[in-house]
Amino acid sequence: MRACLFDVFGTVVDWRTSVSRDLAAFAKQKGIAGVDWLEFAVEWRKLYQPSMEEVRSGRRPFTVLDVLHRESLDKLIARYGITGLSEADKDHMNRAWHRLDPWPDVVHGLTRLKSRYIIAPCSNGNIALMVNLAKRAGLPWDCILGAETARAYKPTPDAYLNSCRQLALAPQEVCMVAAHNNDLRAAKAQGMRTAFIPRPTEHGPGQTSDLAADPACVDLPAKDFVDLAAQLGC
Amino acid sequence: MRACLFDVFGTVVDWRTSVSRDLAAFAKQKGIAGVDWLEFAVEWRKLYQPSMEEVRSGRRPFTVLDVLHRESLDKLIARYGITGLSEADKDHMNRAWHRLDPWPDVVHGLTRLKSRYIIAPCSNGNIALMVNLAKRAGLPWDCILGAETARAYKPTPDAYLNSCRQLALAPQEVCMVAAHNNDLRAAKAQGMRTAFIPRPTEHGPGQTSDLAADPACVDLPAKDFVDLAAQLGC
Repeated sequence: MRACLFDVFGTVVDWRTSVSRDLAAFAKQKGIAGVDWLEFAVEWRKLYQPSMEEVRSGRRPFTVLDVLHRESLDKLIARYGITGLSEADKDHMNRAWHRLDPWPDVVHGLTRLKSRYIIAPCSNGNIALMVNLAKRAGLPWDCILGAETARAYKPTPDAYLNSCRQLALAPQEVCMVAAHNNDLRAAKAQGMRTAFIPRPTEHGPGQTSDLAADPACVDLPAKDFVDLAAQLGC
Repeated sequence: MRACLFDVFGTVVDWRTSVSRDLAAFAKQKGIAGVDWLEFAVEWRKLYQPSMEEVRSGRRPFTVLDVLHRESLDKLIARYGITGLSEADKDHMNRAWHRLDPWPDVVHGLTRLKSRYIIAPCSNGNIALMVNLAKRAGLPWDCILGAETARAYKPTPDAYLNSCRQLALAPQEVCMVAAHNNDLRAAKAQGMRTAFIPRPTEHGPGQTSDLAADPACVDLPAKDFVDLAAQLGC
């Protein structure tokens, strides 16, 4: 094994808490009242898979996630009846996804993993989003891979295969790390190794899915990134 | 200004000394005698521009530099009459370009620049080459941009424009840093800012080109990466 690729939203960062907190602070500053920003963040995330499905299905040419996020945001702003936002305001809100906080074990775990392996995100987020997020959060990636470099959204096979190819590695030399069994199932189907990290509050206190690794597609179940580093000899 | 993009071969690393030393050590180990490896490295580099020109001209679809380097290497192995090399041997030789040493000011200068700017290579080298080179040399890039992500070889405009776009920045928010005036001329033509770093022994002791910045295309002449960091307030 030569490299570890990471899912980001949910696995590396806590999008739900971060987006809602970021939007709530912005709303307060702008004097926007009466919106439940935690609900707003969850509704935003619900539009994520359908927006990528337009690309995955071939109905739409490859389009980066910042654009898809922005289209979804515009729909929600209309649905919630929020008015008086400038273009700069909406761009700032859209970049809430560039300002996500990592789970507490992430920076230490990645730093240890980097001593022995190439580490990179393999996320559906675009390069600018991943770079800005990493710089703010101190994520020590060796490079940024994922949807924009692969020109394919996970779980499309090319999202995984092109990422391995861009490192000049065979899939079996690369471990996909995620908090979502369906991501690991797709990676495993392309020959990658897989590690599962539970993030039991990603979807809030009542989460029912992805509480444990599915042994059918997970090679390495780990408690968190530090435990994964220890299991991989770092 | 938000980001600095760097030419790599010649500007960040001393390809000439590194490739020749790497090949000489390998040849000694394999018992290959009678080859001037410094000359061999220079001949290899001479095939670099013509090989990329096939892609730039549209005669050939985009092909990563590791493949172009390997085709050039095969030509040189035949021309020098070197025999008895296995596929693994030739792959190892080709990866001499993944094992290049940085000039002495580079790691310190990049580390300072990273505190304030996004830093990334904008090289004609492919992702795997850049990642392996950076990991070995300790180059603290925020991400890997350049020919493979842009799907275009410098000095084609798209090599610069796509790199800026992938950071979601306008060209005027990005500074191209290089030891080659022609690289900076092309970057400036696309609206980027430019910084020149002299590397007066890149081509050996008798170098006659690129000894000084061309004021027509250089915004920031600097002595080295540490001086550039100081000039940019890092």
